Amino acid sequence: MEQASLATKTSSNVIRCRAAVAWTTNAPLSIEEVEVDPPKAGEVRVKIIASGICGTDNHTLEGKMKTPFPVILGHEGAGVVESVGPGVTTVKPGDKVLMFPLPECRECFYCLYPKGNFCEKENILSPTGLMLDGTSRFTCRGKKIYNIMGTSTFTEYTVVHEIAVAKIEAAAPMDTVCIMSCAVPTGFGAVFNTAQVTPGSSCVVFGLGGIGSAIVMACKASGACRIIGVDINEEKFPRARALGVTDCLNPNKLKKPVQEVVKEMTGVGVDFAFEAIGLIETMVAALKSCNRSYGVCVIMGVAPTGSQLSFDPLVLLPGRTLKSSVLGGYKTRDDIPKLVTDYVQKKINIDPLITHRLPFPKINEGFRLLQEGKCIRCVLSMRP
Amino acid sequence: MEQASLATKTSSNVIRCRAAVAWTTNAPLSIEEVEVDPPKAGEVRVKIIASGICGTDNHTLEGKMKTPFPVILGHEGAGVVESVGPGVTTVKPGDKVLMFPLPECRECFYCLYPKGNFCEKENILSPTGLMLDGTSRFTCRGKKIYNIMGTSTFTEYTVVHEIAVAKIEAAAPMDTVCIMSCAVPTGFGAVFNTAQVTPGSSCVVFGLGGIGSAIVMACKASGACRIIGVDINEEKFPRARALGVTDCLNPNKLKKPVQEVVKEMTGVGVDFAFEAIGLIETMVAALKSCNRSYGVCVIMGVAPTGSQLSFDPLVLLPGRTLKSSVLGGYKTRDDIPKLVTDYVQKKINIDPLITHRLPFPKINEGFRLLQEGKCIRCVLSMRP
Ligand SMILES: NC(=O)c1ccc[n+]([C@@H]2O[C@H](COP(=O)([O-])OP(=O)(O)OC[C@H]3O[C@@H](n4cnc5c(N)ncnc54)[C@H](O)[C@@H]3O)[C@@H](O)[C@H]2O)c1
Ligand SMILES: NC(=O)c1ccc[n+]([C@@H]2O[C@H](COP(=O)([O-])OP(=O)(O)OC[C@H]3O[C@@H](n4cnc5c(N)ncnc54)[C@H](O)[C@@H]3O)[C@@H](O)[C@H]2O)c1
Ligand SMILES: [Zn+2]
Ligand SMILES: [Zn+2]
Ligand SMILES: [Zn+2]
Ligand SMILES: [Zn+2]
Repeated sequence: MEQASLATKTSSNVIRCRAAVAWTTNAPLSIEEVEVDPPKAGEVRVKIIASGICGTDNHTLEGKMKTPFPVILGHEGAGVVESVGPGVTTVKPGDKVLMFPLPECRECFYCLYPKGNFCEKENILSPTGLMLDGTSRFTCRGKKIYNIMGTSTFTEYTVVHEIAVAKIEAAAPMDTVCIMSCAVPTGFGAVFNTAQVTPGSSCVVFGLGGIGSAIVMACKASGACRIIGVDINEEKFPRARALGVTDCLNPNKLKKPVQEVVKEMTGVGVDFAFEAIGLIETMVAALKSCNRSYGVCVIMGVAPTGSQLSFDPLVLLPGRTLKSSVLGGYKTRDDIPKLVTDYVQKKINIDPLITHRLPFPKINEGFRLLQEGKCIRCVLSMRP
Repeated sequence: MEQASLATKTSSNVIRCRAAVAWTTNAPLSIEEVEVDPPKAGEVRVKIIASGICGTDNHTLEGKMKTPFPVILGHEGAGVVESVGPGVTTVKPGDKVLMFPLPECRECFYCLYPKGNFCEKENILSPTGLMLDGTSRFTCRGKKIYNIMGTSTFTEYTVVHEIAVAKIEAAAPMDTVCIMSCAVPTGFGAVFNTAQVTPGSSCVVFGLGGIGSAIVMACKASGACRIIGVDINEEKFPRARALGVTDCLNPNKLKKPVQEVVKEMTGVGVDFAFEAIGLIETMVAALKSCNRSYGVCVIMGVAPTGSQLSFDPLVLLPGRTLKSSVLGGYKTRDDIPKLVTDYVQKKINIDPLITHRLPFPKINEGFRLLQEGKCIRCVLSMRP
């Protein structure tokens, strides 16, 4: 069960294959043989080629999210359509696809509205771990296994809703564009859509992991002239500088609150502040780091379930703006394939975000790299 | 000491006149004889003609703000320059002026920056009750009296900084345009500058007092097609409807939280939500009332000192924006005289905001009208 795929089809069209099952929080994932049911109406079964490991997967493994267990994690996947259920029209077997943690049904009010992207077909803020019909497509050792945000990509095969899958162009290198399912649009969209960073502006980015690094790249691409990076892990600093960070701050080594240092460095606070960690204290520090009269603070980190963001409303009163977005506000199926094409056409570069690659069975090593802050993104390949 | 002015000049050019002194919180104001010192360098002494009573004056009287006591309240004044201190160049004796609770020095970084208006020459969020040189211009019965936000208009004469005074055109009716020192720009700017309400949009306004009513007028002028008004005082509803409110809600009479009712009424939440009360609970309700994918919530109310605005950051995550502003983001000296001209030229109408007028000595009756929710704005006239 080590390197070669176990995938086999049964007569009922169930696929048996390998998957990394998280039986419980805060424990290593277990590579298991799972049964993946055929796609039902409006569903697509995808053979996963590659998948990134996102901070949200790690938060979930740490028990900080509502997602039920046992679960197959992973939501940053690229793959090839294996089969489709009744009624599926937008993808067909053999298509190269990305699958997204946020669907775009193209029918609901939110999808039809020009601004925003929060499709109401699935409320990813209250995850059930099940398909929209309330059932699961995964079993392992006779037990039902839940999914994460309708995706679950740490498996050789998965079943996703058609409304969360998009065909991408055939030339796309799957083991790189997989991170365009989450990290890239989240970071780029935070800058281009949510904050709308302007040329010559000053920015601060709290957290220099996968999302924070994508934010830094987009700030630089937007012409920001100063980009302050904040992280407690100084190993992140060299790569962050290479991406565009001009000044690095480790809050643990400062004698004052980091927002005061940012204020001193810039005289008046930054134009744009980003939080890409998922902690209340860094969200508040980011808010206070931006200029009080016109600063914009964008929170991309996801705090543990039940958290309360708390601050004196006088912090906002002089003119600050506080915003947030999922997947950077991109309408997933409409917009993200275009980002893939931009990458293929070398209009954007995302290569520096991937610092490590591992074969799928080494997934626990990949999680360790993320937890210990060694990687920006580690991509798992299904075919090593 | 009832109707006629007591104002007299002494040889040292101190003016003795009547003022309403708040000796302590939660007690009636006392009409007293006060001494008003001559203006020092960069200061202007103004003979007040008329003054509105703002919710912020009332919050201060209730002890909810940091302003020190004893104090002369009032910051919504119109008057005529009596004399100027050394170095004053932008106004001269005889000019009709407004004076603002937020200065515009035209020199600091914030004033020179095109966006925002939070001049740093005076931090009105940490009021000292004193002039910028750390002294007071008011004494009463031998005691130093503090000012409110550098203004203090509930007096026949006051001293303000040149950077907080602007000449307005001679044709302006003083007993109406006085509310352009605070309520009008605050409400109009919340809509035109901070939220940027779009034609055809839906809005909710929490609080239908002076600020909320100005917000309603501006939403209507912006072409909003639905304006939901929220207040616990139903006496506010007829006037609010006349100004443009299409639906009125009294949260105390609802079986569900008001944000859920707003969501049901609109299907998806409003495009723009405004808070014009100054309570944490209504700020959070306003935030939750706006569309989760692209709604904008603007908080104009000022909560009591030390309050904490607290909510689950997941409320923001799907795409909401939370903003705030002082005086609606207008650069006070540059922009507000233009609003006065617009009024004189009948391009905008602010008359419906003034529902009551009283002679200055009846100021406690004016506060009672505000506290009991009988008025939108009550204007006090110095010359009854
Ligand atoms: N809004 C969205 O659509 C969206 C999408 C993906 C991920 N996320 C969230 O973004 C956040 C970041 O995800 P990621 O994949 O970049 O994770 P990551 O683990 O790669 O990066 C987190 C970074 O924060 C740093 N950090 C941790 N604690 C810190 C502290 N107290 N002060 C300063 N730095 C600190 C870590 O050293 C690390 O570099 C997570 O909360 C994740 O859930 C949000
Ligand atoms: N941001 C600024 O620049 C600025 C400027 C002026 C005033 N303000 C603030 O705006 C707020 C409103 O000022 P105003 O002059 O309109 O005061 P106001 O007293 O005229 O209006 C307040 C309204 O809120 C209503 N209300 C009270 N409690 C309520 C509740 N729980 N639910 C619903 N409605 C409720 C009252 O009935 C009243 O109609 C105050 O907090 C004031 O400090 C801010
Ligand atoms: Zn992710
Ligand atoms: Zn939808
Ligand atoms: Zn006011
Ligand atoms: Zn200034």
